[in-house]
Amino acid sequence: MLNKLVIVGVGLIGGSFALALRKAGIVKHIVGVGRSHKNMKLALEHGVIDEIADDLRFALDNADFVLLAMPVGQTENILMQISPHLQSHTIICDVGSTKQDVVAAARSKLGKNLKNFVPGHPIAGTEQSGILAAQENLYVNKHVLLTPIDETSPDAIQETTHLWQACGAKVSQMDVTVHDVILAMTSHLPHILAFALINHSHHFTSRAPHEMPKFAGSSFLDFTRLASSSAEMWHDICISNREELLKQIKAYQSELSKIQFILKNKDADALQIAFTQARDMRKFLMKNN
Amino acid sequence: MLNKLVIVGVGLIGGSFALALRKAGIVKHIVGVGRSHKNMKLALEHGVIDEIADDLRFALDNADFVLLAMPVGQTENILMQISPHLQSHTIICDVGSTKQDVVAAARSKLGKNLKNFVPGHPIAGTEQSGILAAQENLYVNKHVLLTPIDETSPDAIQETTHLWQACGAKVSQMDVTVHDVILAMTSHLPHILAFALINHSHHFTSRAPHEMPKFAGSSFLDFTRLASSSAEMWHDICISNREELLKQIKAYQSELSKIQFILKNKDADALQIAFTQARDMRKFLMKNN
Repeated sequence: MLNKLVIVGVGLIGGSFALALRKAGIVKHIVGVGRSHKNMKLALEHGVIDEIADDLRFALDNADFVLLAMPVGQTENILMQISPHLQSHTIICDVGSTKQDVVAAARSKLGKNLKNFVPGHPIAGTEQSGILAAQENLYVNKHVLLTPIDETSPDAIQETTHLWQACGAKVSQMDVTVHDVILAMTSHLPHILAFALINHSHHFTSRAPHEMPKFAGSSFLDFTRLASSSAEMWHDICISNREELLKQIKAYQSELSKIQFILKNKDADALQIAFTQARDMRKFLMKNN
Repeated sequence: MLNKLVIVGVGLIGGSFALALRKAGIVKHIVGVGRSHKNMKLALEHGVIDEIADDLRFALDNADFVLLAMPVGQTENILMQISPHLQSHTIICDVGSTKQDVVAAARSKLGKNLKNFVPGHPIAGTEQSGILAAQENLYVNKHVLLTPIDETSPDAIQETTHLWQACGAKVSQMDVTVHDVILAMTSHLPHILAFALINHSHHFTSRAPHEMPKFAGSSFLDFTRLASSSAEMWHDICISNREELLKQIKAYQSELSKIQFILKNKDADALQIAFTQARDMRKFLMKNN
């Protein structure tokens, strides 16, 4: 049972964590920290938090657990602000989509509290953001990946695992570098591809503005759903995982060039093989998800 | 009221057309033409068609309307086979995702019946294929694009429009070239991007086969939903609209290179602009869909 939980950034992810733990009945008091007073008032009115923090020192006093759920680009700054007020028993977990930069920030700012820091990443969310999108069931049956480092204490890992499991999530641990490589592939790159497709489509909307929407079938809309995610959040993620993302954009471009080459040569067999391979791969993922 | 409707290719698209017209109560007898006897038997058992055609001549005798709903690559061959048996009043419509090649095939094979040919394309469907995926409501509120040519008779256009409207669709007409350009953008290119992403991800599944599925969040799965479409159908579409598709892959690659360049330079402002532009565009499409 947590006596005091502090959520920094009460949006879709942080708000849903609060609602899920409340539903599980294992938290007594939830304090919210946020940039927008309007948003924090909404969180209070909707019963997501019990208190809006005016003062970080007071908010962190005797806190059992701190969840960092603001855009990942603010991590270093927030860690610097909270670090002086952390008690020796307070566990800190983040939810950032990139982990190497978060670990670097923690190493540089947390000092002796580093052992209590558990880097984490819930694979959950929708294209919506903000407190009004938060829901108590967001994490049910979703994967939460923890990427503890050598310094992380087993107790901190255990407590963090326990809380995410109480939200209904499936928790596992992995190496922080592996995390960032695979995430670039399954999430960051797809978002970049969607952004590029939407920008590509500008040429056509200007040529035939009234025709375009008639053509935007479910495949196009599904595909571009990703492009309506928060621009700020995506900016931060791209900058954080920049090097891996650049590598993969390059690798993806050669994959695309292969199909281009096959098409140019009207190589029917190679085209069938590429499409069938893609289909089988998707089946594997669906089966093992 | 149609006395006799012939569906060539009784899968998702053709089967749903049959079911919708049956529901509307405006067709007396439906004949199915298909390669797979097993599939045709299923269509008969499920009440989608009333009769399996053994002989094209007999099937087309006194037919009011023929819907061509087989993969688009077979269009020329099928037109050649049915052409000798068409009566002067029989209207023919197709559902191919590409229109210029279909029009070329019709011009070369239909002779004096060309005036009765209405090239069409319903913007509907799921990633599933086959008769068991057919549903009577597939076309409700979906767009159907007709691309008549100079030779097409107004009566044929009117009758085809009427039938698709009876399926619940919103019917409009447009130029055949414009159709192929925009379709490449909204559908063919996204599918190619999804195929390439799945093939790209092979490198990672081989490195971390057990980790991968944990990461495949909804964004990756949505994105790659497209890649599970029929390989044969997509092969045909890519070959049919090959030139436009090649142009657009090239244009898309420069769009992707722009983001790559911005990322390389850590140009935060340009990144925000690209993401915000994408988001606004998506909103426009959703609003006008």
